[in-house]
Amino acid sequence: MELDKENTLKILLATDNHLGYLERDPIRGNDSIVTFEEILMLANLHEADFVLLGGDLFHENQPSRKTLYSTMELLRKHCMGDRPCSLEFLSNADTVFTNTKFPLANYMSPNYNISMPVFSIHGNHDDPAGNGAKSAMDILSVAGLVNYFGQAHSIESIEVFPVLLQKGKTKLALYGLGHVKDERLHRAFLKGRVKLQRPEEDMESWFNIFVLHQNRRKHGPTNYIPEQFLADFLDLVVWGHEHDCLIDPTPHETHRFYLTQPGSSIATSLAEGEAIKKHVALVEINERQFRFTKIPLQTVRVFIFNSIKLKDSRLNPSREDQIETYLAEKVEGLIQMAQEELRSNEKAPPLPLIRLKVDYSGGYSQINSIRFGQRFVNQVANPKETLMFHRQRQTYSVQWRLWGAGRRLSGVVVGGRSGGSGGGSEGPAE
Amino acid sequence: MELDKENTLKILLATDNHLGYLERDPIRGNDSIVTFEEILMLANLHEADFVLLGGDLFHENQPSRKTLYSTMELLRKHCMGDRPCSLEFLSNADTVFTNTKFPLANYMSPNYNISMPVFSIHGNHDDPAGNGAKSAMDILSVAGLVNYFGQAHSIESIEVFPVLLQKGKTKLALYGLGHVKDERLHRAFLKGRVKLQRPEEDMESWFNIFVLHQNRRKHGPTNYIPEQFLADFLDLVVWGHEHDCLIDPTPHETHRFYLTQPGSSIATSLAEGEAIKKHVALVEINERQFRFTKIPLQTVRVFIFNSIKLKDSRLNPSREDQIETYLAEKVEGLIQMAQEELRSNEKAPPLPLIRLKVDYSGGYSQINSIRFGQRFVNQVANPKETLMFHRQRQTYSVQWRLWGAGRRLSGVVVGGRSGGSGGGSEGPAE
Ligand SMILES: [Mn+2]
Ligand SMILES: [Mn+2]
Ligand SMILES: [Mn+2]
Ligand SMILES: [Mn+2]
Repeated sequence: MELDKENTLKILLATDNHLGYLERDPIRGNDSIVTFEEILMLANLHEADFVLLGGDLFHENQPSRKTLYSTMELLRKHCMGDRPCSLEFLSNADTVFTNTKFPLANYMSPNYNISMPVFSIHGNHDDPAGNGAKSAMDILSVAGLVNYFGQAHSIESIEVFPVLLQKGKTKLALYGLGHVKDERLHRAFLKGRVKLQRPEEDMESWFNIFVLHQNRRKHGPTNYIPEQFLADFLDLVVWGHEHDCLIDPTPHETHRFYLTQPGSSIATSLAEGEAIKKHVALVEINERQFRFTKIPLQTVRVFIFNSIKLKDSRLNPSREDQIETYLAEKVEGLIQMAQEELRSNEKAPPLPLIRLKVDYSGGYSQINSIRFGQRFVNQVANPKETLMFHRQRQTYSVQWRLWGAGRRLSGVVVGGRSGGSGGGSEGPAE
Repeated sequence: MELDKENTLKILLATDNHLGYLERDPIRGNDSIVTFEEILMLANLHEADFVLLGGDLFHENQPSRKTLYSTMELLRKHCMGDRPCSLEFLSNADTVFTNTKFPLANYMSPNYNISMPVFSIHGNHDDPAGNGAKSAMDILSVAGLVNYFGQAHSIESIEVFPVLLQKGKTKLALYGLGHVKDERLHRAFLKGRVKLQRPEEDMESWFNIFVLHQNRRKHGPTNYIPEQFLADFLDLVVWGHEHDCLIDPTPHETHRFYLTQPGSSIATSLAEGEAIKKHVALVEINERQFRFTKIPLQTVRVFIFNSIKLKDSRLNPSREDQIETYLAEKVEGLIQMAQEELRSNEKAPPLPLIRLKVDYSGGYSQINSIRFGQRFVNQVANPKETLMFHRQRQTYSVQWRLWGAGRRLSGVVVGGRSGGSGGGSEGPAE
């Protein structure tokens, strides 16, 4: 597909940058910032018309001065300047930039010289909170550095007004909804109280993007947003919050839209999904068509994840020395894998993240992960939490007798404990 | 004195705005912000070429999102826009804006449309601290909202490079030094290690201002900066940190300069000095002359301070009911004084600050200030700390015997305790 430049609107897509994550870690402290700069540089390299972020730009709800400063420094460096921004802004800015005395896109302001605007919703990590209910995104917004949109002001009835942008013949309606408690949003959807307000004129001529920041995986009956809740007229859904990079746009089974889940640009847990190679994407929209190009991130710290069962080793559970040697060999193997990956990518920081998840069921005991990690201090970025022990969940059939009730209930009890030692978080921390 | 406009450089002078002070107080929470807006509006009204702040712009070292947001909002609203800034910037920006990747005055940047630049040093409340040693002033600086200068990078040898500005024939050398521990700066001065680097060309043609943020009052042998330490070539010294408004420029006894102490724009303690009417100043400089106009602030909460001795009442110390009535009448008198002041100033918030300092020496006891204050809940802004009890310091002559040393020393012991109840801070909190 050859796209004529003047009618092609280019968006650099990224999410969950978690700026400031582990900022005090002597090894990993700058990772989030370094990769965010890579993303902004990629956006400029590909001459993106704008950057679209899907929330959790900041890891902490109240970012430190250092992180806030670094973020603003990068945005000022890479998003201001003389590259002309040729986007026409067609929406009523009051409807999309709410809760600000400066309701206009930064690149439309006569007081800022913006070369590449950033549009962003908030995530659960950087949602409005505290005295005055301000978000760190509001700080970036009042500084003219980010166009913060997608704030729902009532959960009873959510009206989403799109940012309407035009470049040549291409017209984009960009809908955004910052993080809201999943259960409440789920309920609002069920009650038909989430309305995407489509532009009345030439309704069918717009390319429609919706960006949201919610659980996509089912964490409970209503603790997620089923994809099919989303309006059928959408063309592309950008799902933030989920950190696994599942960025390839997949057509929905029943709805018209494609769905992309860019995933985080930094691993904020040592879960398996975070080890998927991290990407951002360039979306090129030409009238009602789009082209999607995934771009691997070079500066992300290499993360190798593996899981084993001690049972498979056939070692004697009482020979802790042998078990430790066995685990050390496994970890060394993972380090070698990381080193191979590092050889093909000199921009990645030199020390990899290594996580070996060890199922110790079968009479084995855990070994001290912190002491174990000491031998890898100069080889991995996370020596203290390289190992993570868990036992397979076992289910038992049991019978409960309700004393005094005179009837039997049957149920299931989860036996054994999953996870535990290792110091590191393994569960999702999106 | 008639000043020709094109050669007259106008500076609006203010200091110690303490933005965010008591931000959670339902009555006083907005005071600092409201008055800061008044100051910026006055600066525009008088067409100041720039605003000069003397430190403690923020009350908290890590300002809340709300306060940071409000501050940025006001600076964006009042300092950006199309009023042309006709200042020539003559210094090497690297020497005055250190520790930033954007070493240039905001109004010189092609990316910001600044109508009225703000130049500021930091105070002890907003000095660089924490991970990365960033100040809240750095946040404003990277946002293009403030020109943060006067950072000393070594206490061993402080070189102060001036901001050099020119308007028509008037040339200004603006020296700044953000807060440094008084004892260390005192020592550096004594050792001749504080150097103000004068411009080499036409050295005598510059008007020289020095702004600093230190103890001016002697708190201990070296815990302040004696005025005569300051260079004799200066024309005007702007002293921040001291909250009493002693803004009228006073000629120094032995040195060439005038000294102005603008004082804070909000009372951050209920000390007597904070009750002095608050002002800012317009300084108009024409070549080597200047005109100084003090401007009263209208939005500052009225603060009436008085002190009495219970002894003078001649009441019976055992008649607590009579004493309470007596004190209530005194407070009512102060409230009436406040109301008179409020009648002539409708911009001030309606509830005044009232402080009655009560010397209870002579056998009297303190009464419960919080309970006492309940009767003034809707009449004063600080009912719980209206009264402040203290006893006169008494000095005794004593003799100390150093056991085993066989010699006598004479000394002075301070008897009695000053201050105490009332809940409010009385001492300086500059
Ligand atoms: Mn999230
Ligand atoms: Mn996240
Ligand atoms: Mn101070
Ligand atoms: Mn102060």
